[in-house]
Amino acid sequence: MTPDRVSFAAGDVGDWTIETIRAVCGQTLRAAPRLARLEGATFQVPVGSIWVIDGVRSNDRYVNRVEKNQLVARQAELGRSESTCGALIPITKTAAWWRLTQDERRAIFEERSQHIAIGLEYLPAVARRLYHCRDLGSEWDFLTWFEYADSDREAFDELVVRLRETEEWRYVEREVDIRVTRN
Amino acid sequence: MTPDRVSFAAGDVGDWTIETIRAVCGQTLRAAPRLARLEGATFQVPVGSIWVIDGVRSNDRYVNRVEKNQLVARQAELGRSESTCGALIPITKTAAWWRLTQDERRAIFEERSQHIAIGLEYLPAVARRLYHCRDLGSEWDFLTWFEYADSDREAFDELVVRLRETEEWRYVEREVDIRVTRN
Repeated sequence: MTPDRVSFAAGDVGDWTIETIRAVCGQTLRAAPRLARLEGATFQVPVGSIWVIDGVRSNDRYVNRVEKNQLVARQAELGRSESTCGALIPITKTAAWWRLTQDERRAIFEERSQHIAIGLEYLPAVARRLYHCRDLGSEWDFLTWFEYADSDREAFDELVVRLRETEEWRYVEREVDIRVTRN
Repeated sequence: MTPDRVSFAAGDVGDWTIETIRAVCGQTLRAAPRLARLEGATFQVPVGSIWVIDGVRSNDRYVNRVEKNQLVARQAELGRSESTCGALIPITKTAAWWRLTQDERRAIFEERSQHIAIGLEYLPAVARRLYHCRDLGSEWDFLTWFEYADSDREAFDELVVRLRETEEWRYVEREVDIRVTRN
């Protein structure tokens, strides 16, 4: 059971049309017309991609059993036909975050920032998948991919605004918000 | 701050002479005369290596602040001149382990198996460094590298026996114990 790899490749091909690329903090990413989410056992990254970010689906790092059961009961799968909107949000946290111990990171993440509790409020409307990058030697620590219906655009905007106001986000040193629509 | 990569390469070169390679459970690794620990920004894996295992030093996953402070106060660095003995122990845990949530894994790891508390008893005699492999797509989940003096061989044997008797070890599906001495 090896974690699945993913590559997000921006360029001329891909199932998603890039609407906006906005740096929330730190350096942005180059503009491109399309985004491909390539995931699973074997895939080819398109030749001539403008940028590619690799990640891996891995084990849960913070969620406890009660929270996990709530998430599983409420969350939706990726790929729903009505999910014509998507967002890719790569994030890098500070060195100070990574020097914290597990209990300190968990306390900031959930007890003080309610990252999981806030996300739960937007389920099942906003489907979400987290990928880890840091151990791969990436310039990014995580990628989160979101899918939602056109009618849930405002809800999604509200979700990311609420998360960016938390104590956890003081440890974010780079974040780019990429919005896409399905071709 | 990207995590440092490591490669352990077994073959004809390396600072350590391999004494024994023993499968504790699962498939063993091939015999070889020498072991090299290659770590840091840039290194070349020796051509013709018999096997190579890659890992990454990453953030702590289970330790809390109180435990971390105890570890830092007592632990020794790698590379002590009296540390003429070493051990490399690659481990793979079961799919069932990885399906557990963070609180469940922590409870098994420390509250019920006392992994950290047992290790503390052998500090500073046994210096230790953990590397993560799982997210790299490796067949291994972790590597632990140990260094200790010849006079602490028995203590080290006792340490690994005690850990292997814990509830945590019921989730180990592959483990190889490689003992080395410094050339």
